[in-house]
Amino acid sequence: MEIKLKPIGVIHTPYKDLNEAPIQGRLKSQVKGTVEVYPEFSEGLKDLERFSHIILLYHFHCSGGPKLVAKPYLGKEKRGIFAIRHPCRPNPIGLTVVQLLKKSGNKLEVSGVDMLDKTPLLDIKPYVPKFDAVPEASSGWLQDKLDE
Amino acid sequence: MEIKLKPIGVIHTPYKDLNEAPIQGRLKSQVKGTVEVYPEFSEGLKDLERFSHIILLYHFHCSGGPKLVAKPYLGKEKRGIFAIRHPCRPNPIGLTVVQLLKKSGNKLEVSGVDMLDKTPLLDIKPYVPKFDAVPEASSGWLQDKLDE
Repeated sequence: MEIKLKPIGVIHTPYKDLNEAPIQGRLKSQVKGTVEVYPEFSEGLKDLERFSHIILLYHFHCSGGPKLVAKPYLGKEKRGIFAIRHPCRPNPIGLTVVQLLKKSGNKLEVSGVDMLDKTPLLDIKPYVPKFDAVPEASSGWLQDKLDE
Repeated sequence: MEIKLKPIGVIHTPYKDLNEAPIQGRLKSQVKGTVEVYPEFSEGLKDLERFSHIILLYHFHCSGGPKLVAKPYLGKEKRGIFAIRHPCRPNPIGLTVVQLLKKSGNKLEVSGVDMLDKTPLLDIKPYVPKFDAVPEASSGWLQDKLDE
């Protein structure tokens, strides 16, 4: 079974190089980017403006091919790929929660981006705290690293 | 540009029919399911056990083909596809945050499932509140519906 996806747009960010990008957008929440949805999909953006946050799914840039264990940005120990947010995953889909600042036609101004400039956009979902917010969740091996 | 994905496993849930499944897993958080990761990917599950919650990305079952506007489960008005969590999206990727109860080999016992039984699994990401939890986010058009 094979699933074929096609980009619905492109994400513009200030990050031209992986070394410049933060581990996750919310750690540098002031950094702005623009989500450009291709005109043929812009009708799908209706009703999005009243959400303060959205979930972006995008195609991860991975130069080395998929891995099952990899060294995360935080820490020196190799971790299972499903326990980290590393780009080189069996299915290279990235996920970032960003703040929606403004919607103008087929363009969304957002803050908290962490993906490379020109990243292919796959999906936008509304962020709904009742579905998506678990502030009390434990952060596993990341807990100590985030406190540092 | 075309992106090809392959399932890394399958999600077993009590829902054999779309009409039985809740709108989102966290609205029926006690409902358990099993995430079965194919043996060739099980090494990637290393270090996942200390997370209390995980994000599942999966292939949405959509019988009618992609839509740009659709009627959400809540409400009678048609909404933009990117402002709802409807399965018939241009790229049919589903996202659900579930609680991780137990890890046994290549199987994860989880609660809060909302997907159909035998849903193809595409990715697992650790849920990290610092990245993913925005309890204060506004729920857009969904706000009034969730309060009802």
